Amino acid sequence: MLIVLKPDAKPKQIEKVCAEVRAMGFQPHPMPGAGRTAIGITGNKGPVNPLPFESLPGVERCIPVTKGYKLVLREMKPEGTVIDLQSAKVGGGKTFTIIAGPCSVESRKQMDQVARFVKDQGVNILRGGAFKPRSSPYSFQGLEMEGLEILKETGAKHGLATITEVMDTSTVEAVSAAADVLQIGARNMQNFSLLKKVGKAPKPVFLKRGMSATLEELLLAAEYVLHGGNYNVILCERGVRTFADHTRNTLDLSIVPSVQRLSHLPIFVDPSHAIGRRHFVEPMAKAALACGADGLMIEVTPDPDHALSDGAQTLDFKGFEQLVESLRPLAKVLGRTLN
Amino acid sequence: MLIVLKPDAKPKQIEKVCAEVRAMGFQPHPMPGAGRTAIGITGNKGPVNPLPFESLPGVERCIPVTKGYKLVLREMKPEGTVIDLQSAKVGGGKTFTIIAGPCSVESRKQMDQVARFVKDQGVNILRGGAFKPRSSPYSFQGLEMEGLEILKETGAKHGLATITEVMDTSTVEAVSAAADVLQIGARNMQNFSLLKKVGKAPKPVFLKRGMSATLEELLLAAEYVLHGGNYNVILCERGVRTFADHTRNTLDLSIVPSVQRLSHLPIFVDPSHAIGRRHFVEPMAKAALACGADGLMIEVTPDPDHALSDGAQTLDFKGFEQLVESLRPLAKVLGRTLN
Amino acid sequence: MLIVLKPDAKPKQIEKVCAEVRAMGFQPHPMPGAGRTAIGITGNKGPVNPLPFESLPGVERCIPVTKGYKLVLREMKPEGTVIDLQSAKVGGGKTFTIIAGPCSVESRKQMDQVARFVKDQGVNILRGGAFKPRSSPYSFQGLEMEGLEILKETGAKHGLATITEVMDTSTVEAVSAAADVLQIGARNMQNFSLLKKVGKAPKPVFLKRGMSATLEELLLAAEYVLHGGNYNVILCERGVRTFADHTRNTLDLSIVPSVQRLSHLPIFVDPSHAIGRRHFVEPMAKAALACGADGLMIEVTPDPDHALSDGAQTLDFKGFEQLVESLRPLAKVLGRTLN
Amino acid sequence: MLIVLKPDAKPKQIEKVCAEVRAMGFQPHPMPGAGRTAIGITGNKGPVNPLPFESLPGVERCIPVTKGYKLVLREMKPEGTVIDLQSAKVGGGKTFTIIAGPCSVESRKQMDQVARFVKDQGVNILRGGAFKPRSSPYSFQGLEMEGLEILKETGAKHGLATITEVMDTSTVEAVSAAADVLQIGARNMQNFSLLKKVGKAPKPVFLKRGMSATLEELLLAAEYVLHGGNYNVILCERGVRTFADHTRNTLDLSIVPSVQRLSHLPIFVDPSHAIGRRHFVEPMAKAALACGADGLMIEVTPDPDHALSDGAQTLDFKGFEQLVESLRPLAKVLGRTLN
Repeated sequence: MLIVLKPDAKPKQIEKVCAEVRAMGFQPHPMPGAGRTAIGITGNKGPVNPLPFESLPGVERCIPVTKGYKLVLREMKPEGTVIDLQSAKVGGGKTFTIIAGPCSVESRKQMDQVARFVKDQGVNILRGGAFKPRSSPYSFQGLEMEGLEILKETGAKHGLATITEVMDTSTVEAVSAAADVLQIGARNMQNFSLLKKVGKAPKPVFLKRGMSATLEELLLAAEYVLHGGNYNVILCERGVRTFADHTRNTLDLSIVPSVQRLSHLPIFVDPSHAIGRRHFVEPMAKAALACGADGLMIEVTPDPDHALSDGAQTLDFKGFEQLVESLRPLAKVLGRTLN
Repeated sequence: MLIVLKPDAKPKQIEKVCAEVRAMGFQPHPMPGAGRTAIGITGNKGPVNPLPFESLPGVERCIPVTKGYKLVLREMKPEGTVIDLQSAKVGGGKTFTIIAGPCSVESRKQMDQVARFVKDQGVNILRGGAFKPRSSPYSFQGLEMEGLEILKETGAKHGLATITEVMDTSTVEAVSAAADVLQIGARNMQNFSLLKKVGKAPKPVFLKRGMSATLEELLLAAEYVLHGGNYNVILCERGVRTFADHTRNTLDLSIVPSVQRLSHLPIFVDPSHAIGRRHFVEPMAKAALACGADGLMIEVTPDPDHALSDGAQTLDFKGFEQLVESLRPLAKVLGRTLN
Repeated sequence: MLIVLKPDAKPKQIEKVCAEVRAMGFQPHPMPGAGRTAIGITGNKGPVNPLPFESLPGVERCIPVTKGYKLVLREMKPEGTVIDLQSAKVGGGKTFTIIAGPCSVESRKQMDQVARFVKDQGVNILRGGAFKPRSSPYSFQGLEMEGLEILKETGAKHGLATITEVMDTSTVEAVSAAADVLQIGARNMQNFSLLKKVGKAPKPVFLKRGMSATLEELLLAAEYVLHGGNYNVILCERGVRTFADHTRNTLDLSIVPSVQRLSHLPIFVDPSHAIGRRHFVEPMAKAALACGADGLMIEVTPDPDHALSDGAQTLDFKGFEQLVESLRPLAKVLGRTLN
Repeated sequence: MLIVLKPDAKPKQIEKVCAEVRAMGFQPHPMPGAGRTAIGITGNKGPVNPLPFESLPGVERCIPVTKGYKLVLREMKPEGTVIDLQSAKVGGGKTFTIIAGPCSVESRKQMDQVARFVKDQGVNILRGGAFKPRSSPYSFQGLEMEGLEILKETGAKHGLATITEVMDTSTVEAVSAAADVLQIGARNMQNFSLLKKVGKAPKPVFLKRGMSATLEELLLAAEYVLHGGNYNVILCERGVRTFADHTRNTLDLSIVPSVQRLSHLPIFVDPSHAIGRRHFVEPMAKAALACGADGLMIEVTPDPDHALSDGAQTLDFKGFEQLVESLRPLAKVLGRTLN
């Protein structure tokens, strides 16, 4: 940590800050600078609480240096994490993986139809929500256990890996039994009880970035899962909340290379939720591929205009086919393989 | 809902939109305007999914009108909700309630010392975290069940109502047994499983606004709790996430009169978490009182610089005393009673 | 405009709102809905001030429908605006135009070296700041008139069109005389005096999106220029300000298809300023091309680490060469021609 | 500045960074820390460009320490700047100054009526816009020179100081001749040409915070004015742009104590523009007073519902009277004098 002093900080004040650092068992390193002094701290094993120092006289502000994550750092696995889902390998920089399916599991027939279609398109991972986080208690909340059952059957029938959201600790076991990947939704990115629980689960975790999560918080949320013993985590950008109102959320694609620089975990993009408009899914999906994302999560359903949730951002079969067709040559020229 | 058409929308396109509205069982109301037509929808029982229409040719965008909340509306209880905690009545516009205590329960001795002190200062509700949501898995996570026990004993001993955070569905029962008010933290504001669960709990709920929650989402989160049957909900502003970096979060005090205009629920302010700097707690606490908040949540502990969490935003006893002294005359002149 | 009433609005209150609408010379259209009434307004020639109605009893909020822009709408020029700069044609969907050069014009030698290099790379438009908007008065402010002179000479010598920022009304004439395109920086996007002035200038305008400008405000700023008679406007996304701190600004690529849906004006992307880190310029540039942008603005200089401004986001020659090489096959597969 | 290295940075990489620091004429101070090394820089006279270092191998990020402002620092004038406008003294902590008047100067009669009224209410500074920055070119742009004339006459007649916005360098002289205080609007906060010009003007400057300006940028913008020789600057918070949509902007009152801690300049609050709703002006004005602001800027006009601009946020005479009445006892108890 770095403690920045005020321009007029007295030598006595500087000494008091140093004494406080020493009292914590660390070493202070005062550095006189242009107009002011800054004090570095060494000897700490983890992040130092920056805040106590800020109330000392003469201190302007503190700047944390050490981040709280370790296991997610690229240095831990420079070649990148690859997750083997049998039907598909995720991550590692060569493949570009499309996860597709409806927002909500609505019926066995719907899922069967979608599974057959996406498999034909070369997709190997099927999504479908059984438990649905909805802003309003009066909105459709998903088919729950029945939805899980349908998803599992459909995946098995078509040889597709499956992914679905788990919303609380009490259903982690059931979801782990039914699906191949456990999705943590954006609203639960800092539901630490849930993160600890899926850290013990036998299935990979697909962790969506919170609506206003920083890169650091996203990596720390993943660190919870890895810290629990589950090293198979996929991160996913799904748009963040800003003042901009032309899309539902603001898709922050620059997090893709930022994650890849810092961490070994695969990073996906969900343009459907980020944008909330079906006609912008294709351009943003192409952008995600072009900037190096490991894959996409795309909503598709036969009749999106009558879907029980999120219809307007969901592609129909024709739209999805067109999307895959537009991605294929792009992937090729970028040295990536669609799977 | 209102469907806004493009300036050059064809009559056929307008008719198609109307037909789609009718197909959903609603009535379309086309209104030719300045340069473009808009179509109102009536006959719906709840919010209409705005999105499907946006993909129809000729449609520019859709504007939702009906909100998804009902039970929280001021119209349901124009005089405002008053929550009786025995030691204090919360809400209703006359009282101004201070909830005080340390960020984390650290020991029996610490809690006893704080309880005695805050009671002396006229405070009737004691806070203290037993389960702590922390960004990093390596940070102190709270004393958990032991912390609950200490909080309960301390409250009973000093005749103080108690409030503590509940982080997941599996501990709602234990927390309900130990504390008088269940706090839902900002990161869990849209943990819908938890909201449903506390909607069935026998204790009032203190619901903190999420880091990037809109007023509508905050009210909808409360609606989940009321919908479950628990009508005793207190809302709390604790700062939102913006680009501004001079405070930890941006304290959005304008939500106080905004909530009061729309809803009957009490609204508190937590300046400690919002600002993250102890020296700004007093001015923002005074501002919260002045703009009409129903109360404050304030962090106080004997030795904040050595607290296990959030020390820099926590007042020491002297700072807290000074805060209460500065609030008292302000409350009086505003016709409010500190409790 | 749409006026949304409160659920319990009285018929008398509704009538009063209607009377007020009529008093303004417009027609009210009350529509009873699910739980509340909304009133549409027709007969207005432009946007209705939504705000006065919000203070009437019984009114919950007002929703503007008509936007204030007209000339920028795609409907005015469905095929899209193409701007002919002799050395390059900008816009229209087929070409992908790279504007390149240093952040600041620093010397004749530097500009000559850059011009020769970028021309070799197939670039036809040279950038270089003569007047520099800097947050601090103590930072390098540009070579000003001398910088303009150098830019002009360099462009002429190498047959490159030139672009440079104009910061105030008093230098519009000088900049118009020296450069082929007038850049309006993000901080001046709503400098309306300047927008009016460049609306009368004889050169195309390159209008950067403000740091927190909505799509509507960006289009309205462009409308000022078109309204002045200058129809040659290029828009440019350069990152917006959000809570996210892993890049200097958050690059909002979704504005590219959003602009193209609404407006006929070309839209560029400046990844250098948005990201502020040279190592992320290439992935975001590829993403911009993939999502359909009309072009890029890229900072390049021989020795970025010793540049007088913005060095860290600036590519060196090798980095730029690599960028162009990576864009070329991508452009080809997307049916675009680099120029 | 502090350069933070990656956990696995090689000694050679560390040495290379140090060499680069030395090459710039500064001294590097490597500090081995918990898991990684950080390098402090001393010997610099101003801020070091943090960015070049970030591209060196082994470097994770750079953290700037020295800010670019000096003249605005509280250390330069610990007692605080007091600006003498004859009719009122602004700043210094004892007075609480209300600036009031209509959004736009619309007619001699309107201004006369408002001036008489506000003077009666104890107000000593009259506002009124002659040049209006409007998002749309089709909105009312102000009476311009005629408006200036009316404002000047009205101020002189009633013995009120006057304040009005200056939008560009070409009208600074005219506005300086007509008004007692020059307002720089939020959209022009980083119009550096204008800041330089008013830095040479003979009248105090009222500088509104930009829509997404950080505290640092606000202070740097003021530094431009002081650097020009004009030491009489008043800062003003007027709401910032965030995701929150319940008010027009998010009023960031915590900037009041933040400015006061860092700078000697007075800080005002404009709740009218921040909130955009007349019914929330009073609570937020009280909050501004309570948290220590030096004054308010309030919009008031006889018939706000028919104002040519910003009617819904403007108080009528009755509303303003009520506001002043509610502020008076609050000011008294806080030891402040309304003026």
